[in-house]
Amino acid sequence: MNLKEKIRVIPDFPEPGIRFKDITTLLQDGQAFRYAIDRLAQYAKERNADLIAGPEARGFVLAAPLAYSMGAGFVPVRKAGKLPGETVTVSYDLEYGKDKLEIHRDAIKPGQRVVLADDLLATGGTIGSTIKLVEELGGVVAGVAFMIELTYLNGREILKDYDVFSLVQY
Amino acid sequence: MNLKEKIRVIPDFPEPGIRFKDITTLLQDGQAFRYAIDRLAQYAKERNADLIAGPEARGFVLAAPLAYSMGAGFVPVRKAGKLPGETVTVSYDLEYGKDKLEIHRDAIKPGQRVVLADDLLATGGTIGSTIKLVEELGGVVAGVAFMIELTYLNGREILKDYDVFSLVQY
Repeated sequence: MNLKEKIRVIPDFPEPGIRFKDITTLLQDGQAFRYAIDRLAQYAKERNADLIAGPEARGFVLAAPLAYSMGAGFVPVRKAGKLPGETVTVSYDLEYGKDKLEIHRDAIKPGQRVVLADDLLATGGTIGSTIKLVEELGGVVAGVAFMIELTYLNGREILKDYDVFSLVQY
Repeated sequence: MNLKEKIRVIPDFPEPGIRFKDITTLLQDGQAFRYAIDRLAQYAKERNADLIAGPEARGFVLAAPLAYSMGAGFVPVRKAGKLPGETVTVSYDLEYGKDKLEIHRDAIKPGQRVVLADDLLATGGTIGSTIKLVEELGGVVAGVAFMIELTYLNGREILKDYDVFSLVQY
């Protein structure tokens, strides 16, 4: 199946000049969604993942079914203030200002192998912050999986110490 | 499996006096997560769902694996400004002020049977707004499924015209 044909490109979103890759057309196609998750799950199995973690909100859409498919646990990484238990926090720079991501302190046991999943690898800022959280808890980042990779933004450079997999490249 | 044993109760979150039902302990347990999704999927199959829709962000954690499990499509319902295509919007009241939810106009074809999934049925405000969006597109709300139902808040009253299913009740 050619997944790229299922992804819609929307010009000038969220800003003029950006050609947004909209995966909702893929998600709402049951066959394409299943095929995409199965391929991500195959990767995560090869990496011997104990847990799948994903950043809110679009990361949840891939990481949760991926975890389900493998029978692995799912760990949500959330914006500050959303997780009710004790957390560890990382700050990261946005174009204007800063944002924070959090993970529950008891979400990962030291030595557990964690595959991270998100919809899009652009510059790698969000996933780099997610890696920091997993490693602060002693988790092993066994791999990083994306639906889409924007190769011209060279996000793999930030992730050069990790195993990276993507389903569709632009 | 007793799912209630997998759910952690956190006192005074997000405000004093509230006993927050934290499902992250269930999600990170691979066996419990799979069992919960399988039971929700059994319900959605009985309701002959073509699509599964869920509101951001916690609804994604259940609705996406549920859709995957059935081979159905997944439709995200998002906060205003997040979806890149043409949307329909509904406003709903919060304790202080208003919030908006959106769905892509082409996400559902008239007559398609949609099961909605979210983590928690409290007063039913979020899911009531999600129903409005699905019906505005001509979708048939075939059922509404929750991980947790707070029966003392009587959210079923708002949903009395719909088929409602929950895995765990408090």
